[in-house]
Amino acid sequence: MMKQVSIGIDVGGTNTVFGVVDKEGNVMVKDTIPTPKHGNIEQYINDVTASINELIKSVTLLNADIEIMGIGIGAPNGNYYTGAIEFAPNLSFRGVVPLAKLLREKFDLPAIALTNDANAAALGEMIYGGAKHMKNFVMITLGTGLGSGIVVNGEVVYGHDGFAGEIGHTTVIPEGRDCGCGQKGHLETYCSAPGMKRTAFELLAKRNATNSLLANYSFNELESKAIYDAAVKGDEIALEVFEVTGHILGRTLADTVAYLSPEAIFLFGGPTAAGDYIFKPTKDYMEKYTLPIFKNKVKILPSQLKSGDAAIVGASALVWKELEK
Amino acid sequence: MMKQVSIGIDVGGTNTVFGVVDKEGNVMVKDTIPTPKHGNIEQYINDVTASINELIKSVTLLNADIEIMGIGIGAPNGNYYTGAIEFAPNLSFRGVVPLAKLLREKFDLPAIALTNDANAAALGEMIYGGAKHMKNFVMITLGTGLGSGIVVNGEVVYGHDGFAGEIGHTTVIPEGRDCGCGQKGHLETYCSAPGMKRTAFELLAKRNATNSLLANYSFNELESKAIYDAAVKGDEIALEVFEVTGHILGRTLADTVAYLSPEAIFLFGGPTAAGDYIFKPTKDYMEKYTLPIFKNKVKILPSQLKSGDAAIVGASALVWKELEK
Repeated sequence: MMKQVSIGIDVGGTNTVFGVVDKEGNVMVKDTIPTPKHGNIEQYINDVTASINELIKSVTLLNADIEIMGIGIGAPNGNYYTGAIEFAPNLSFRGVVPLAKLLREKFDLPAIALTNDANAAALGEMIYGGAKHMKNFVMITLGTGLGSGIVVNGEVVYGHDGFAGEIGHTTVIPEGRDCGCGQKGHLETYCSAPGMKRTAFELLAKRNATNSLLANYSFNELESKAIYDAAVKGDEIALEVFEVTGHILGRTLADTVAYLSPEAIFLFGGPTAAGDYIFKPTKDYMEKYTLPIFKNKVKILPSQLKSGDAAIVGASALVWKELEK
Repeated sequence: MMKQVSIGIDVGGTNTVFGVVDKEGNVMVKDTIPTPKHGNIEQYINDVTASINELIKSVTLLNADIEIMGIGIGAPNGNYYTGAIEFAPNLSFRGVVPLAKLLREKFDLPAIALTNDANAAALGEMIYGGAKHMKNFVMITLGTGLGSGIVVNGEVVYGHDGFAGEIGHTTVIPEGRDCGCGQKGHLETYCSAPGMKRTAFELLAKRNATNSLLANYSFNELESKAIYDAAVKGDEIALEVFEVTGHILGRTLADTVAYLSPEAIFLFGGPTAAGDYIFKPTKDYMEKYTLPIFKNKVKILPSQLKSGDAAIVGASALVWKELEK
């Protein structure tokens, strides 16, 4: 019997990663190429095509009865409706890159589609992970930025123009911290990994905490892993970073609940490795700030996607979602 | 040829209003009964039933070829999934009132359904009003409170438990003004009609504005109409109230755009009678605060529903939406 698989591609600022994924979300083979630094899209498409062909060849060697059902692509500023990467500030491509269309010219497969990376993560959670039986949930990806994917009635919310789901760019502290997008006080500036570092430095300054373990790092050295390690050792500044991060994230998720009334909110990404240090204050503050009709109803859950392969796996989920139609 | 009509019911804190509405959104006949002050639900259902039967009789007298397609109900804390009013703080009914079910026992009609009042307004806009050809939009109702109805892919977003769409209860100023729900700093406390009054009193105090036209009103006397009248006369405090209201509403709608990427946001209710005084700063600040990918894409529009009958008309729209299924 033929085994159906899909190909997931994640376009990152540094690398583009590929994988062949089975229906249970296992990555069978994978590959990486650099994302170009100088915006040469023709060369990039050729490299991507060669890499996909290599993957197909090697997975077919493993198992002759493989049927490739399609290619799903996750990319920053990826627009599902147009299948294009549009004006992505962290990629070298200029303007609009119709990646799905360009790959359809290279591969004749049942489904080739593109979305942004956080929507891909939400699809991964829905197809393979903890949201398998959920119709209404939100995925929050904590990393260099803070991304989100919103699912309503079993469908990712793309909105009128394809760019819905940017909870990281909602204002949580009016006139607050500078955000990379040019605005101020956005959730991303507080609750992403760099946001936690900024909180640590604010608290070091506020508390004049010369004894903190975090007082020995430069701004460019400190990473969220070090904050976690210090918290485990009982460092008060590090513990307060998690408290502040959970406070702002929890309060914002209470707003998310007011908008969408989801069954659950999944958290994904590096900072979630801190477990209860981040989940407990986030949940507690969400409950504190949520409307009475929503209290004790909405779950905050860790993503079930394995962190190493999540980007590939999430992108591959788009194929199965397309084939449902 | 039979003319199909629907019945709209709006359950308010003081009165329950009824109307028979044609497919163009015109109210053919209407009626009002008091909403009970002491929570007697059996008596209320009998009164509602009698009033509906009267309406059907009178509309049939007007036109013998009338076909009643159903009853749509808009109510505070109305839950579409259960058809019940659930724990509504401003109504005298205790707990859960399964109004749709109780009316189904009285009337044998193709569709009897219930939702909250702001969702009903959104449906009214979609079926009869300015959102006829839109699949993704948001309705904001400005009145005693601030309600919202969210439409994604042509469907009202109810969420997991039926209560989605409470943008009025998202935090816009952390630890800000007391909200009736028990929380602080919610949009409703700034941008509803009473919110504008609170802003006026804050500004009078801040500016020590003894010369303002608004300085002659007590807190209990001042209504948003008087703020508008003063603004038209060039009163600086009144003008600043609109500026502040539009600033906070516009910034929050930029968040709404980040969540949902709607085609348009409709504003409905008393304060919108102020026209450009409220629409212009709201639009300007939404554009100022919105992400680059959304700039100059999202319309802010006045609702096309006639204010007097909008609650009835909105509720009646639920019937046509049900019959689409």
